[in-house]
Amino acid sequence: MALKVHGLEKSMPTACVMLCLAEKGLNFEFVQVDLSKGEHKSHPFLSKNPFGKIPVFEDGPVTLFESRAITGYIAHKFKDIGTDLFRHDNIEEAAMVGVWIEVESQHFSPPTTAIIFEMFIGPLFGHTTDQSVVNFNIEKLDKVLDAYEARLSKSKYLACDSFSLADLHHLSYIYYLMKIAPCAYLINSRPHVKAWWEGISARQSFVKVAQGLTLGE
Amino acid sequence: MALKVHGLEKSMPTACVMLCLAEKGLNFEFVQVDLSKGEHKSHPFLSKNPFGKIPVFEDGPVTLFESRAITGYIAHKFKDIGTDLFRHDNIEEAAMVGVWIEVESQHFSPPTTAIIFEMFIGPLFGHTTDQSVVNFNIEKLDKVLDAYEARLSKSKYLACDSFSLADLHHLSYIYYLMKIAPCAYLINSRPHVKAWWEGISARQSFVKVAQGLTLGE
Repeated sequence: MALKVHGLEKSMPTACVMLCLAEKGLNFEFVQVDLSKGEHKSHPFLSKNPFGKIPVFEDGPVTLFESRAITGYIAHKFKDIGTDLFRHDNIEEAAMVGVWIEVESQHFSPPTTAIIFEMFIGPLFGHTTDQSVVNFNIEKLDKVLDAYEARLSKSKYLACDSFSLADLHHLSYIYYLMKIAPCAYLINSRPHVKAWWEGISARQSFVKVAQGLTLGE
Repeated sequence: MALKVHGLEKSMPTACVMLCLAEKGLNFEFVQVDLSKGEHKSHPFLSKNPFGKIPVFEDGPVTLFESRAITGYIAHKFKDIGTDLFRHDNIEEAAMVGVWIEVESQHFSPPTTAIIFEMFIGPLFGHTTDQSVVNFNIEKLDKVLDAYEARLSKSKYLACDSFSLADLHHLSYIYYLMKIAPCAYLINSRPHVKAWWEGISARQSFVKVAQGLTLGE
């Protein structure tokens, strides 16, 4: 049955799901959701996701929301196709994929999305940057990236020596973060984080998905 | 090999992990981490979790942190023992467990932990409650619980008609939330949410773990 992604190509969580599908080499139908018309806050979209957020994913009768739940579903259901994003055959590596997925969700994502909103997306829509919010979150992210630097000095990717969902979830976020000068420095000043970012962002799947990440252009 | 939990019995994420082990009927060694002495921010704890947070879980050579990663690991590794917390034999139900785990993580947890800190934990340690933070987060949680009420009018538990990790992750948080009068109302004023909470908090596993949830006593 056809796979469907409802979202916006330039949105970071939508890009995450598309990237996961690209790593699996799966085709899908893309349904554009017009946020400017509030489609995500109206029916029928709300019947697919009561929280009114993109993306939504459909796999026949299964309708899912929350990007990390969607990528987890794809990684498990299609584990034998394309990149094994959950290291299914190695329980220790799979455990670390789970840990670093949570690190992204709980430690990396909150300051990063706050910075990207304040300094990049908000201003595109007339929001005035609150420098105190930026400073607070840059300080938080700086500490998080110290732990990343230490981790990446011991393993090639976050969970282990293979690319996994834990790495994948960072890509579209760091892509926009790199467009903000003081934040690019947070990545570039750490040799292992920089090498990791350069490696994962050069993957064919991301090069393709990044073409749609056109916010601010 | 012995399972070990490093944490604090009255802490919400530690309780989550202990609850998961109780649902599986698994024995474990409990290692108390003295937060007042800053043990979680010093070595050797930091070599187990570079982010300096409890709980940490050890299963022989595997050391894990982040409570949701730990419960996910336990639910998968011990899927054939005790309660099947991930609905492994039903792909549609398993998919919904994944979705509602993310709903807890992204929508329920941020306002709930902010409220519990501002109104309950902070004041125990001399913090003055910031009412504007409370109001902002109560408004957010109120909307989230509207979606829960709609969901729970259609299924007995969040993901499906069986208890799962998605429900389990809420228990220790709602336990403390119910001690804060305006927040207890958020639960009690919604008939389906109230019935769900009463059902899950009466589980034998939680009755046992709740004995350790003594913050404020």
